[in-house]
Amino acid sequence: MKKALAFDIGGTKIYCTIINENGEICDEILKFPTPKKLEDIKQLLKQEISKKENLVDVIAIATAGAVNNSNSAVIGSTGNLPKGYSNINFQSLSKKRVFLENDANSASWAEYKLGASKNTKVSVMLTLGTGVGGGIIINDKLLKGKSGAAGEMHFKMYNDKRRKCSCGSWDCFEIYASGTALKLDAEEILNNKNVTTYDVIKGANNGDREMMSILDHWQNDIIAGLKGLANIFDPDCIVLSGSMAEFINIEKVEQEVNSDIVTTPTSIRIAETGNYSGMIGVTLLALAEV
Amino acid sequence: MKKALAFDIGGTKIYCTIINENGEICDEILKFPTPKKLEDIKQLLKQEISKKENLVDVIAIATAGAVNNSNSAVIGSTGNLPKGYSNINFQSLSKKRVFLENDANSASWAEYKLGASKNTKVSVMLTLGTGVGGGIIINDKLLKGKSGAAGEMHFKMYNDKRRKCSCGSWDCFEIYASGTALKLDAEEILNNKNVTTYDVIKGANNGDREMMSILDHWQNDIIAGLKGLANIFDPDCIVLSGSMAEFINIEKVEQEVNSDIVTTPTSIRIAETGNYSGMIGVTLLALAEV
Repeated sequence: MKKALAFDIGGTKIYCTIINENGEICDEILKFPTPKKLEDIKQLLKQEISKKENLVDVIAIATAGAVNNSNSAVIGSTGNLPKGYSNINFQSLSKKRVFLENDANSASWAEYKLGASKNTKVSVMLTLGTGVGGGIIINDKLLKGKSGAAGEMHFKMYNDKRRKCSCGSWDCFEIYASGTALKLDAEEILNNKNVTTYDVIKGANNGDREMMSILDHWQNDIIAGLKGLANIFDPDCIVLSGSMAEFINIEKVEQEVNSDIVTTPTSIRIAETGNYSGMIGVTLLALAEV
Repeated sequence: MKKALAFDIGGTKIYCTIINENGEICDEILKFPTPKKLEDIKQLLKQEISKKENLVDVIAIATAGAVNNSNSAVIGSTGNLPKGYSNINFQSLSKKRVFLENDANSASWAEYKLGASKNTKVSVMLTLGTGVGGGIIINDKLLKGKSGAAGEMHFKMYNDKRRKCSCGSWDCFEIYASGTALKLDAEEILNNKNVTTYDVIKGANNGDREMMSILDHWQNDIIAGLKGLANIFDPDCIVLSGSMAEFINIEKVEQEVNSDIVTTPTSIRIAETGNYSGMIGVTLLALAEV
């Protein structure tokens, strides 16, 4: 059975393991804090690859940042990875083919092959974490766009400059739907800079009405964004993943979205393939190519 | 050479002509005011079809409203057409195959085959008229979605209930980017219910600063929407068509969109296939099937 040495490279941690063509993890999962220096990231990858490349058919890397259409290089914005990250020659790190895909795209592919969006023709996945990632699958293909960067959830929620987004623009969906956004909602509503996302979640869980209403406010912005995506894509389903997805009232979101769109009802679902979905998805994509 | 008897059915007028597989018009173009009564619409179609169906290979109808994935029926919202329009059994009107597609989708296909988006992999087209239509083409296929209704440009520009949209929801792109929107902008800015879209255009053309700034305000909302579409689709180009497109400063819009997106620059273009693009596009789609 074909296998990949899979990585998931994020701003804070790097995962690594071996995954087979069924998406099954067949080795220990290594976890490293992401080195601050570019050279140290390269060194770490090189070292892990040299240990295991002989055991696998391909090196499959899910990474922060957009990935080009030949799946060979990172282009454009790469979150909180060191400067120069997008200049890494990933192929030079291994004798085997090195295959890259954006982490959110990879995770959405895992959901499509093994999880919540299995057997759909059109699906949209949103990864709600510190930021918001997106992956769109249409007719058995990831939507990549002309340069590979499609699926970025930077569409405006307002057009009067309220919140600066991490991308440098204003009022993108990301800055209303992410974990960061929930903290900003709380700061604004409570007029308190020190309140954290955790405070809101904990308070809401304990029945604190103010915290519950902040969580509701955040969820309403997500609902608004999902309505737009439902009207644009008319998808079979929209899958929510990431650390913030568990705080969503999925039945309520589905009901509210479907009560206010021009297309037929869509299904809103929670992702099923777990923490390693990025590595699983990029493995399945990479092994389809070797 | 294969030919279609083509119709374009809108809320105010119905066009009809014969078009060949090159997209060339080969007959006179008939124009009728759209009958107010459902029976009269059916009668009109039946009459024109019975005159000419023997001359063609297929009946190709570009229509207001979403069209299902088998291109046989209108589903959902149909603008200002009479109630029951979506229940018409179009196939019963002819011995030949009757093929339907949404008018904006049809026009975008004409642009893709013969016009501004020729040879692109991913293109988005917006038809800016009384309302806003959308057509999205990815890898040589119209994006239709699960039910056929994809490409609806009803994503929110605000999430605090400012303007009611024609779709029944609030603050969709359509109600900020259409001709109707330009009138609303002028009404709000001038605090005058009687100002018309024509007043704004005429004033702006004559150098009236107030009218120019209203037109600019409207264009800025369009720019904001295009940024989102550029980030979501990473398209080769976005094509603007429809009666309102000529009032857009295309170079300025392209420059502003590209200065504020996370993907590589996209090209913003004006549609090239003219008033009959709906009939041309639906003909090319229909003839590919017979």
